[in-house]
Amino acid sequence: MTRLFNDPTAFADEFAEGFVAANRRTVRAVSGGVVRATAVPPGQVAVIIGGGSGHYPAFGGLVGQGLAHGAALGNIFASPSAGQVYSVAKAAETGGGVLLTYGNYAGDVLNFDAAQDRLRAEGIACETVTTTDDISSAGPAERDRRRGVAGNLCVFKIAAAAAEEGRELAEVVRLARLANDRTRSMGVAFGGCTLPGAGAPLFEVPAGKMAVGLGIHGEPGLSETDVPTADELAELLVGNLLRELPDGVPTPAGARVVPILNGLGSVKYEELYVVYRRVAQLLEDAGAVIVEPEVGEFCTSLDMAGASLTLFWLDDELEALWLAPADTPAYRKGSVTAAAAVDQATLDAAADADVPPASDESRAAAVIIDAALAAIQDTLDRSVDELGRLDAIAGDGDHGIGMQRGARAGRAAAAEALAAGAGAGTLLIKAADAWADRAGGTSGALWGVALRALGERLGDADPAFSAAVVEGVAAARDGVINYGKAEVGDKTMVDALVPFADTLAAALGEGADLVEAWRRAADSATKAAAATSDLLPRKGRARPHAEKSLGTPDPGAHSFALIVVAVGDVLDGAVGG
Amino acid sequence: MTRLFNDPTAFADEFAEGFVAANRRTVRAVSGGVVRATAVPPGQVAVIIGGGSGHYPAFGGLVGQGLAHGAALGNIFASPSAGQVYSVAKAAETGGGVLLTYGNYAGDVLNFDAAQDRLRAEGIACETVTTTDDISSAGPAERDRRRGVAGNLCVFKIAAAAAEEGRELAEVVRLARLANDRTRSMGVAFGGCTLPGAGAPLFEVPAGKMAVGLGIHGEPGLSETDVPTADELAELLVGNLLRELPDGVPTPAGARVVPILNGLGSVKYEELYVVYRRVAQLLEDAGAVIVEPEVGEFCTSLDMAGASLTLFWLDDELEALWLAPADTPAYRKGSVTAAAAVDQATLDAAADADVPPASDESRAAAVIIDAALAAIQDTLDRSVDELGRLDAIAGDGDHGIGMQRGARAGRAAAAEALAAGAGAGTLLIKAADAWADRAGGTSGALWGVALRALGERLGDADPAFSAAVVEGVAAARDGVINYGKAEVGDKTMVDALVPFADTLAAALGEGADLVEAWRRAADSATKAAAATSDLLPRKGRARPHAEKSLGTPDPGAHSFALIVVAVGDVLDGAVGG
Repeated sequence: MTRLFNDPTAFADEFAEGFVAANRRTVRAVSGGVVRATAVPPGQVAVIIGGGSGHYPAFGGLVGQGLAHGAALGNIFASPSAGQVYSVAKAAETGGGVLLTYGNYAGDVLNFDAAQDRLRAEGIACETVTTTDDISSAGPAERDRRRGVAGNLCVFKIAAAAAEEGRELAEVVRLARLANDRTRSMGVAFGGCTLPGAGAPLFEVPAGKMAVGLGIHGEPGLSETDVPTADELAELLVGNLLRELPDGVPTPAGARVVPILNGLGSVKYEELYVVYRRVAQLLEDAGAVIVEPEVGEFCTSLDMAGASLTLFWLDDELEALWLAPADTPAYRKGSVTAAAAVDQATLDAAADADVPPASDESRAAAVIIDAALAAIQDTLDRSVDELGRLDAIAGDGDHGIGMQRGARAGRAAAAEALAAGAGAGTLLIKAADAWADRAGGTSGALWGVALRALGERLGDADPAFSAAVVEGVAAARDGVINYGKAEVGDKTMVDALVPFADTLAAALGEGADLVEAWRRAADSATKAAAATSDLLPRKGRARPHAEKSLGTPDPGAHSFALIVVAVGDVLDGAVGG
Repeated sequence: MTRLFNDPTAFADEFAEGFVAANRRTVRAVSGGVVRATAVPPGQVAVIIGGGSGHYPAFGGLVGQGLAHGAALGNIFASPSAGQVYSVAKAAETGGGVLLTYGNYAGDVLNFDAAQDRLRAEGIACETVTTTDDISSAGPAERDRRRGVAGNLCVFKIAAAAAEEGRELAEVVRLARLANDRTRSMGVAFGGCTLPGAGAPLFEVPAGKMAVGLGIHGEPGLSETDVPTADELAELLVGNLLRELPDGVPTPAGARVVPILNGLGSVKYEELYVVYRRVAQLLEDAGAVIVEPEVGEFCTSLDMAGASLTLFWLDDELEALWLAPADTPAYRKGSVTAAAAVDQATLDAAADADVPPASDESRAAAVIIDAALAAIQDTLDRSVDELGRLDAIAGDGDHGIGMQRGARAGRAAAAEALAAGAGAGTLLIKAADAWADRAGGTSGALWGVALRALGERLGDADPAFSAAVVEGVAAARDGVINYGKAEVGDKTMVDALVPFADTLAAALGEGADLVEAWRRAADSATKAAAATSDLLPRKGRARPHAEKSLGTPDPGAHSFALIVVAVGDVLDGAVGG
């Protein structure tokens, strides 16, 4: 159970606030996450990590001297938005370029890649190394499709220690990839975790059973067995990990290895040490030499009952970097030479860009869009539970809350922009960024992409509203497909968005007015969303029970349809009336 | 649930083994617990902590530079034996004397006091400061009766930092007392913990409820409320702690304070940080200045769902000591100057004392006593579940396991001594020490005292067996009463031991032989043990539901009766036959 929270939708933000309050010596809050509170030498590569909240000390707890320079902190189990990653990277980088490194999950890849594009567009060198240590999540031939779990720490630590030594971005990337290539993890779980405010666990493991290979958000495992003894668990984990040694380590005999035994939440330290006792024996029996092991909690899943073992196979270069000192809220090693604290006053000087001038027509359109965003918010407030239930069938149940947070933030940003005289384009772009930042997750990112694409086509001057809407919706469709890598038939929002965009363009082409065309398009989106009941969702993160969702519509397609219907009503009142 | 274990009776030992294996840079195993693996300057006061296992990082995780010099590690939730404390202190002390500091629980006080007596008897200066931070466990007028919980850390840290500065024992004691006087804690729980191998939690809190003031072994709290929001919990804890400011802190306004928000097991980091957010606001609203706070797990209770807040009110002297660096497996602060590792070879030179010569008569008696110890072991093997069930009614259910472990260890030590030609006295003393070391807890300590008293009276020369037994049993009775501080009628082992000793002496005085006298004495012990069904147990540790035990006999009295009956059968066969 997650028992201690206030408003569940505020949980991740309040966590971040408390986390920074408790660790001011080490970290400071920036838009989107945290960066070091200590000064970084100019020209040092900035190592930026991040991911959903709920995995503490991943990710904020690993920011500080000798480890990450910054962490983007998403909502519970949801990726940070591209805007968050971008903003954290901008706050941390000091001219040496940026390494983005994080666990290989679809939503994270989407958002970190988008942030990388924005950083590069500004001339900031940026590279990415995703972590893929979980051997249960794909076969050895598909290592780049594997998930990142507690082995994250090895990659982050090596990259950051290399950056601290003053190495260039290309070298930091090389070493981070080498560390990832030499890191393997495997996990087990005895019971699920409960999201704040949820009445039931995200998933369950039958009493007396153990799920082998389960992911840190409940992604399905390889098999289910009886709960073993501590020694048997050690034998299972070490046995499997020794069967997949990395290139360059032909045999464990004589090899140097860091074991990391990680608790996922409610499996406690004493139990971990009982298991570690046998892990160490087995590794030594195999002839391996253990170097600075770790036993504790490094990548958790709220209060999930489970544990994982990571083996990180060293070479001389990696060993020196692993032994380097670090000082973060949750991970301390050796003795760091304390760096100076940064000067907060100079940091507070950064200011937001102003609202550019707009035509009267565009400002009139902005009033209608603001009303549409208000209607979207109302619709999602009413549908939050329904969407959550739909998502819980195959996903992690946060679609309703995420959409509600996004819509509220988008509406608030739009109202502020409207008061400042924004045109339609600026208003939508500000709403898009706020939506993506606050909603988190894949759907938040996709709605950010869609609203931003629409806003860019509308602009702040063009009075040709209907034509711009059609172009903008088409651009939104293309942007969502491009970022989300989903096609029609994958049981996603795309299943409703594509017929909506096609019908809208066709109806206007046939001479219908915008209100009528939107109505027809919304009808086709509603039908298409309902038809997703017959589909299986495409493979992806946090869909442990995809097959159970047959017979229910996709929550992303369903919320899309609800939104375009609500917007149609606003258009009918404003333009048609 | 505690899920990962092998043999439940080996859990604490296997934990310690894995803990040392994972932390060789910092700690090393010694008989009874762990001490620093790094060299300590000669003449530095040794700060020795300890207590039951199951509270990690308390107590082994807090040993290292800047914190404790050694920790005695008891069985799960059971005090270490006097022999363990003594042995750890001997391994750690370097001529500057010893401070024993630990949570104020009856079993711990008993064993640490006995160790203190032994150290002092050898000319080693030794003082004690018990920690009493839990405001829920007794009123302000009875502060010295309160339990020690997560505020332990404040006292340990201050004492150790003072020792590191080279201060003398009296100064270390003064500062440890001052730290304890200025530390207050309060805890809540949402659910109980499960001992390894147990089928049900040690206690339960109804779903949706929160126990306020519950102890870390399930000791009863002040009240039960609905589960509050995170902010409401912060308000409850801060409110209560601010109502009991220590001497020297008339108002929080302007005072400097260390808050320690401690998770007890399955309440996780994100939740703690959400609560801490409000704790910090409330302290700042009250005008207090927060200094280096801690949010995490410092004194757990296996996987118990709960949290505690500690407020440690600083003065200038305490603040400097609190900020001093430390480097232990679980607690690191600042940058320590790494001390040299100790040389294991010189440590391994210590050897056990030999078996002294014995008379033929005494060696013949030793054979009988060895057989009696074997019979005790058989009896306890058969009764382990029954004793566990009796103890679970009012206590923590470990009496059966503890007695079994003690009897097995005692028998093994006796067999070894017998093979080395030991007399009756030496054999019993070796069995006594092994029993106390391995059984842990109060009953282990008391059986150690009883068997040792008997052994000292028997000696290795005296052929007057019967008279020595009577004297020895009387000495055992006096020793148990003196150490255990219990009287007849308190529903403890004393209720059976006193009539046993009295009847034995009376029967021999009336001319009965030893076999007959022992039979009568065992009968009276059996009757007295049964009669404890009508008593309420005396107040003490780990007796959350004392009233429920009406109608069932005291497990300690019952196991005493089983043991003396079994010994009677052996005497009948050996002496009477």
